[in-house]
Amino acid sequence: MSSQKDIELIKSKIKIIPDFPQKGIMFQDIFPVFKDPLAVEALVTHITSHILSTQLKKVDAIVGLDARGFLIGPIIAMRLGCAFVPVRKRGKLPGGTVQVAYQKEYGTDYFEMQDDAISAGQNVIILDDLIATGGSAKAAGDLVGKMGGSVLEYIFFIELTFLNGAKLLNAPVYSLIKD
Amino acid sequence: MSSQKDIELIKSKIKIIPDFPQKGIMFQDIFPVFKDPLAVEALVTHITSHILSTQLKKVDAIVGLDARGFLIGPIIAMRLGCAFVPVRKRGKLPGGTVQVAYQKEYGTDYFEMQDDAISAGQNVIILDDLIATGGSAKAAGDLVGKMGGSVLEYIFFIELTFLNGAKLLNAPVYSLIKD
Repeated sequence: MSSQKDIELIKSKIKIIPDFPQKGIMFQDIFPVFKDPLAVEALVTHITSHILSTQLKKVDAIVGLDARGFLIGPIIAMRLGCAFVPVRKRGKLPGGTVQVAYQKEYGTDYFEMQDDAISAGQNVIILDDLIATGGSAKAAGDLVGKMGGSVLEYIFFIELTFLNGAKLLNAPVYSLIKD
Repeated sequence: MSSQKDIELIKSKIKIIPDFPQKGIMFQDIFPVFKDPLAVEALVTHITSHILSTQLKKVDAIVGLDARGFLIGPIIAMRLGCAFVPVRKRGKLPGGTVQVAYQKEYGTDYFEMQDDAISAGQNVIILDDLIATGGSAKAAGDLVGKMGGSVLEYIFFIELTFLNGAKLLNAPVYSLIKD
């Protein structure tokens, strides 16, 4: 299947739900993609093939954001033969953690990674389903930096380009679908 | 690799963290498994092979619980060629949903599935990382029942057998590691 057909198949499964989680937001629901194993295969193959064909450095870890970054992060990591490590909201990860604060629409939130999730000098790719204003992706990138790692790239299924989130980030952004 | 060696490899990666999320609880952290792609492969292969070798009925969907059930639910679904559908806390899923209440230590919580996640008559397997008292797995099973589906089996990486959670459930339980 060609790369363009992969993207068309994935796009055809994404469902637009108006006024979620609040009035005026057109929510892009990626869960219907996961009802079709061929669409998931297309998504995984597309992203893995993008990484293998463009990345010159060895990827040490895929960093996935809770919860939708968990859906294919481990599969991509298996295909690359690298680690998968999570970023979660404060208080969800056991053991020693590293934290960063980030601004949300109403107040401050905190992301954490386990303090042994990545080592100094490691190269990682940050994965989430969607980039809007870029706040949570930037916080994940800051966490990786705080632990001495480098972000090679940020990968998203969907990018809401009109919100310019990519401009906040310190590494290239690759999005399958730009909206 | 033999099935027993699979389990030993996975078990060797699970980290016990005392007093998380509260004093007296020995938390079993499964995220270190995900740092080793061979351990993830062993986990996925073991579970897929268990399902293929024991299940007489066609599996229509893997139902994964937010968030750790998302980590390998989609991979298992891909290997079986079936759908992956999520169970999440109330308010996280867009569109029409079906709800069930369940009791937690301090008060009531709610789980939701999207109302088109499974159809009447479908056979599903419910997947989560750990079964303790069984409350959340039972709520997920109740949701599937409310939508007219049947639970073929509940699968967990870890079962805390002394809490007898499996007795709450309306279908067989398979756990890789019993503690």
